[in-house]
Amino acid sequence: MPKIPLVTLITDFGTADGYVGAVKGVILSIAPRAQVIDISHEVTPHDVRQAAFILHNVYPYFPPHSVHLVIVDPGVGSARRPIALRTPSGIFVGPDNGVFSYVMAREPIKELVALTNLRYRLPRQSYTFHGRDIFAPAAASLALGVPLTRLGQPVRDHFALPLPRLEIGRESIRGEVLHVDHFGNLITSIGFLVWCGEMLELRPAFGEGERVRFNASSARVKVDDTEISGVSHTYAEGVPGRLLALVGSGGYLEIAVREGNAAHKLGVSVGTGVLVQPGEKLR
Amino acid sequence: MPKIPLVTLITDFGTADGYVGAVKGVILSIAPRAQVIDISHEVTPHDVRQAAFILHNVYPYFPPHSVHLVIVDPGVGSARRPIALRTPSGIFVGPDNGVFSYVMAREPIKELVALTNLRYRLPRQSYTFHGRDIFAPAAASLALGVPLTRLGQPVRDHFALPLPRLEIGRESIRGEVLHVDHFGNLITSIGFLVWCGEMLELRPAFGEGERVRFNASSARVKVDDTEISGVSHTYAEGVPGRLLALVGSGGYLEIAVREGNAAHKLGVSVGTGVLVQPGEKLR
Amino acid sequence: MPKIPLVTLITDFGTADGYVGAVKGVILSIAPRAQVIDISHEVTPHDVRQAAFILHNVYPYFPPHSVHLVIVDPGVGSARRPIALRTPSGIFVGPDNGVFSYVMAREPIKELVALTNLRYRLPRQSYTFHGRDIFAPAAASLALGVPLTRLGQPVRDHFALPLPRLEIGRESIRGEVLHVDHFGNLITSIGFLVWCGEMLELRPAFGEGERVRFNASSARVKVDDTEISGVSHTYAEGVPGRLLALVGSGGYLEIAVREGNAAHKLGVSVGTGVLVQPGEKLR
Repeated sequence: MPKIPLVTLITDFGTADGYVGAVKGVILSIAPRAQVIDISHEVTPHDVRQAAFILHNVYPYFPPHSVHLVIVDPGVGSARRPIALRTPSGIFVGPDNGVFSYVMAREPIKELVALTNLRYRLPRQSYTFHGRDIFAPAAASLALGVPLTRLGQPVRDHFALPLPRLEIGRESIRGEVLHVDHFGNLITSIGFLVWCGEMLELRPAFGEGERVRFNASSARVKVDDTEISGVSHTYAEGVPGRLLALVGSGGYLEIAVREGNAAHKLGVSVGTGVLVQPGEKLR
Repeated sequence: MPKIPLVTLITDFGTADGYVGAVKGVILSIAPRAQVIDISHEVTPHDVRQAAFILHNVYPYFPPHSVHLVIVDPGVGSARRPIALRTPSGIFVGPDNGVFSYVMAREPIKELVALTNLRYRLPRQSYTFHGRDIFAPAAASLALGVPLTRLGQPVRDHFALPLPRLEIGRESIRGEVLHVDHFGNLITSIGFLVWCGEMLELRPAFGEGERVRFNASSARVKVDDTEISGVSHTYAEGVPGRLLALVGSGGYLEIAVREGNAAHKLGVSVGTGVLVQPGEKLR
Repeated sequence: MPKIPLVTLITDFGTADGYVGAVKGVILSIAPRAQVIDISHEVTPHDVRQAAFILHNVYPYFPPHSVHLVIVDPGVGSARRPIALRTPSGIFVGPDNGVFSYVMAREPIKELVALTNLRYRLPRQSYTFHGRDIFAPAAASLALGVPLTRLGQPVRDHFALPLPRLEIGRESIRGEVLHVDHFGNLITSIGFLVWCGEMLELRPAFGEGERVRFNASSARVKVDDTEISGVSHTYAEGVPGRLLALVGSGGYLEIAVREGNAAHKLGVSVGTGVLVQPGEKLR
């Protein structure tokens, strides 16, 4: 039985204006049986890095035949190329502006093409909505099994964002706030962290260093002027209204308030530095 | 022809961060043909009662083979159990924190299990995202037809919220504001109300008392310091900008402003008392 | 192979309360294989004109067997009729309150019926939620291929909104702000505009006048007290933080700020007049 075509969507379009609807209409006109799944349409407008972060947290949970369409595209109509790439964990379609940087840092790229073939675009293309006119038809065709190389010329280089900050010293780990989520939890760049009993093992997310281990309960986490003692397993270990540090669902160190909002409490935002002092030598 | 697997989702995740996307990815990896339908992801964070209310309003409109997945889970990682239950009107999956209280008060429970079988969880489970790691694979498997008892041990007890306030006296009915909706309509706990010509029959929503009847046009509805004369059939009967009382789509007494926002106008919120004086003896 | 039933949704319900969920439950109970696609649930409450605008921008991108269900219905329960209409580009279901005005101005109406047949409604209908009780079952049945005339009596007249303002003079074009989108872009009623090299051709959206051409770079666009020189092809041509005029994805003249928010910058809203002076005779 052939696989059901599956296309996921990440955009900064919001859901009020119907822009996402037009994209879905194009996809379903080409692949009527496709599952079209919203991941987020509330990326901060033009925030390519945020889209890259959301994507890399979510794609591993989809089957490998999925096509992940990301349309956060401040340079629409400019010289930035529309691209598609194939990895063992999924196919990715969007602008070559760094939105796939975190995926590319984790997955081998099997194929990478610029979407130059006009046959896989809408007959009439606007200058301002490549999501609908170029990316959606490409994603739908790829979801149906059209080979990547039919959609355009192979390319070798691509634009890459810097990876999230992660500095592992002898006595401390430095990172930054990467994302503030719907609950006001601060997700930091310090990951991936894996529990080994009461120890935490840091396995650098993008392979940029060796693994180190430390004791979770004796570690101190500093953000801004605030210090938190110990890293908890769950939100439920916290005292309501008080800050706690824990390992979030994506494997990153997270700062939260039990049944509260850490971003409001601390008044910090993306980019704020975060320091972990394990209270023991790391290496 | 086998039924199409159908999973509905109610969460407090919001739609910005991709958390819902990860849940859908897990479901579609297990049940690729499933219809995965969003009911709401905008439950007020950690508001179990609100999720229970939304669920009980909506599940009757889905086919009985549907699996309703509810992830409003402030105690994630604590001792609260993950559960699944089967009723004649649907299967329900989520934390045992009361979120199914209103369903359970209306439907016979055919089976109730704790989700203990590790074979129906993701291979690696986080401490903080059971929605993705435990509930989603359970819901997908149940939607595919796996028997409930394969997923875990039968249990007898479960956590229950108090039912919405409804006191039927001899000359008045007392309730409270249960929910404020997107339009600013105040949905009260006084239900279910059914029109019989110009009379209203109150059929207590959870069977907690006898049916009573009263004349809709002579009834007075009091909320806070405000009094409304009569219960209308439709919003269109109201004067633009003025309050009216009517029977909402879920069968509950509702306070609204025609083409306006009753919550803003009255400045009241969930929990505010509501009184109906029918102007005649109720029993 | 029969077509997959496809139903799109535009409502002003928001996505918090589960109202959309109930509509989808009804549709999937009748048409379990249907693709049910959200276009927008964030229409400003009761804003029929906005819904009409969103719909007419999006429906052309869906296959012609699609059923477009629009539930923006301030007169629910009043005398306004529930209707369905068939055009070569799709089937449309909703209240007869003008929400299909822009579609009807562009598409030939092949059939138009009032939804009077009780067999295609839910068995018990509320006075306040025709979306769930009347429109959803009608849309699902039509998506399954039930002929329109089975659902009710043919009607001839229907309610129509005025078309968006577009006045083509000898030396200027006048319109107004029609919509403010998620990015803060101001979409005006001046459309459709089509690029012909460096010239713009205005092809009045609803056929209400002759085509005219003008030079894009010498045109001046005035909104409120602000004047913009030239019409650009893309957002990327703008200077960050500065206003630019361009042809938006729906073919309408749009006023935007590169990587910014034009609505915030100008403080204007829907209805504000917009003037284009091409700097040459138009006819």
